[in-house]
Amino acid sequence: MQSSIGNRKSATMHALFFDGRLELREVKRPRPKPGEALIRVLLAGICGTDLEILKGYSGFRGIPGHEFVGRVVKCGDPEWVGRRVVGEINVTCGECSLCLRGQGRHCPHRTVMGIVNRDGAFAEHLALPVRNLHVVPDEIPDEAAVFVEPLAAAAEVLDYARVVPSPRAAVLGDGRLGLLIAQVLQHFASNVVVIGKHASKLALASSWGIETADLHHTKLRAASFSLVVEATGSPTGLEEALRLVEPQGTVVMKSTFRESAQFDTAKLVVDEIKLIGSRCGNFATALDLLRAGSVDVQALISKKFPLRAGLEAFEYVETNKCLKVLLLPEGSAAT
Amino acid sequence: MQSSIGNRKSATMHALFFDGRLELREVKRPRPKPGEALIRVLLAGICGTDLEILKGYSGFRGIPGHEFVGRVVKCGDPEWVGRRVVGEINVTCGECSLCLRGQGRHCPHRTVMGIVNRDGAFAEHLALPVRNLHVVPDEIPDEAAVFVEPLAAAAEVLDYARVVPSPRAAVLGDGRLGLLIAQVLQHFASNVVVIGKHASKLALASSWGIETADLHHTKLRAASFSLVVEATGSPTGLEEALRLVEPQGTVVMKSTFRESAQFDTAKLVVDEIKLIGSRCGNFATALDLLRAGSVDVQALISKKFPLRAGLEAFEYVETNKCLKVLLLPEGSAAT
Repeated sequence: MQSSIGNRKSATMHALFFDGRLELREVKRPRPKPGEALIRVLLAGICGTDLEILKGYSGFRGIPGHEFVGRVVKCGDPEWVGRRVVGEINVTCGECSLCLRGQGRHCPHRTVMGIVNRDGAFAEHLALPVRNLHVVPDEIPDEAAVFVEPLAAAAEVLDYARVVPSPRAAVLGDGRLGLLIAQVLQHFASNVVVIGKHASKLALASSWGIETADLHHTKLRAASFSLVVEATGSPTGLEEALRLVEPQGTVVMKSTFRESAQFDTAKLVVDEIKLIGSRCGNFATALDLLRAGSVDVQALISKKFPLRAGLEAFEYVETNKCLKVLLLPEGSAAT
Repeated sequence: MQSSIGNRKSATMHALFFDGRLELREVKRPRPKPGEALIRVLLAGICGTDLEILKGYSGFRGIPGHEFVGRVVKCGDPEWVGRRVVGEINVTCGECSLCLRGQGRHCPHRTVMGIVNRDGAFAEHLALPVRNLHVVPDEIPDEAAVFVEPLAAAAEVLDYARVVPSPRAAVLGDGRLGLLIAQVLQHFASNVVVIGKHASKLALASSWGIETADLHHTKLRAASFSLVVEATGSPTGLEEALRLVEPQGTVVMKSTFRESAQFDTAKLVVDEIKLIGSRCGNFATALDLLRAGSVDVQALISKKFPLRAGLEAFEYVETNKCLKVLLLPEGSAAT
């Protein structure tokens, strides 16, 4: 009997499945291909992209979720079994010209966990190639490790902050990503201001010693920042970013949305602005930031839901303008 | 009698003057301030910006013209007298934070020769601070030296071409600036394609051994260039530039126009494109390119007019889709 239950358990799992609408399903547990590991999900995070997917973004069908921390339970290479890991979300072909140049995250043949043609982390288990995995150091708890993917994306702006000595930086947007970016920049820019519309989120930034400006009350001086990060998620953010950046300054654009944005290209040319699109980031950098305690990610956790209450969790994210909501697959607490 | 004519000549000069409309006037010869040199103009070039000024761009009133080669005829520092020179067009305050950081070309207090609050080169004489001047080496003829300003602007794209090993580059636009940029890039990119609509201009590029593509006949493959320079002068150029650039590639935007441009920011973010506005350039680089014979600028000369036929010259530029038209002030041929 015990063994029969064990077999059933190994064959199926609970997952949130999106097929035009999101539902909790019992689905087949993934069977890892050669080079892949089977990972039990310990915690998964709901991201803005997941909300977009539920509105039809990327035409995804399957199990969403791309922010997770888990433990390897099966792998061709026994070295990996039992390791606590996070995983890069782009699964690349490894053979095209972009992959060979080290630009695999732009591989035209890639699948993307929970976003493009590959099941994701809102499940009890997931499968990912071993080459996508990073071991999580013991001193980083699950509640922090689950932020590695968005923190890596946030830390990508450092590439642009480092080129300017003592930059004065502005982060437009006080959402999850904006607050991560502001914390990361705080260590490298001489001055960081988070600009947003939500008093409670700006208060959190203040509690970290970061300067804030409420868009409802303050109009910041034009051309007063050498680096502006656009993380508002809205097409109007770009215009304000270009207003705030000084000549020869840099605007890093993090927001994705479906509308086109309109902007004054003469300003870009005459003031010689650099406008840089930025998506993913480096997991190793994010793990370093967490290990060093440079970034407080756990303050961003609004609420945790068990995976089986996943629909309720999504409703909670949609109705509350909250920060990060986590999903806890059944039995994960025992690990 | 002889001396009286001499005096009259020294006090006035012929110039093209714009005051809502362009006319040939006899105006006072400029009186150089301390630190400035009086320069006799040998040749001046008509640029796209001059045509925009005649349509009201920058609200300029005075003598237009910012591309020139001349000879210093008067200067507090006798070392300069008799020197053949070209001159940087931004005259800066030298004291603001941008000037002190070496970003004088963005000085908010700057005047710009022939464009903002300072008389320009469509005259027999002009005045410029000595710190703006570069001596022209003897081996560079006037007909080449007059291209230093636009060639410097073109060469600025090298800053972005050099960061990629063996870039494949596209230049969108087969006008004066596009053809200069393509020639400059030819020496640094492994492959350059000029994309335009004018058979005769593309033929000129071909004669330099540069690959060309006629937009009327060819649709180039998307995402096939690591560097795209947008020099079409049209708001639709940006969309095509973003289509042609590969992931993590660079688009350098050189066009200025008054309309806003609309573009798909999701493409910029997901493909992590760098969109860089670029205006002025380094005169020393341009002089080096001319001295080395790396760029054929004289092939771009469509026609020369005497300064006193300046109105006719502007009409010629407007009605013919020609390349560079030069103005020759009276008596310059004698130098």
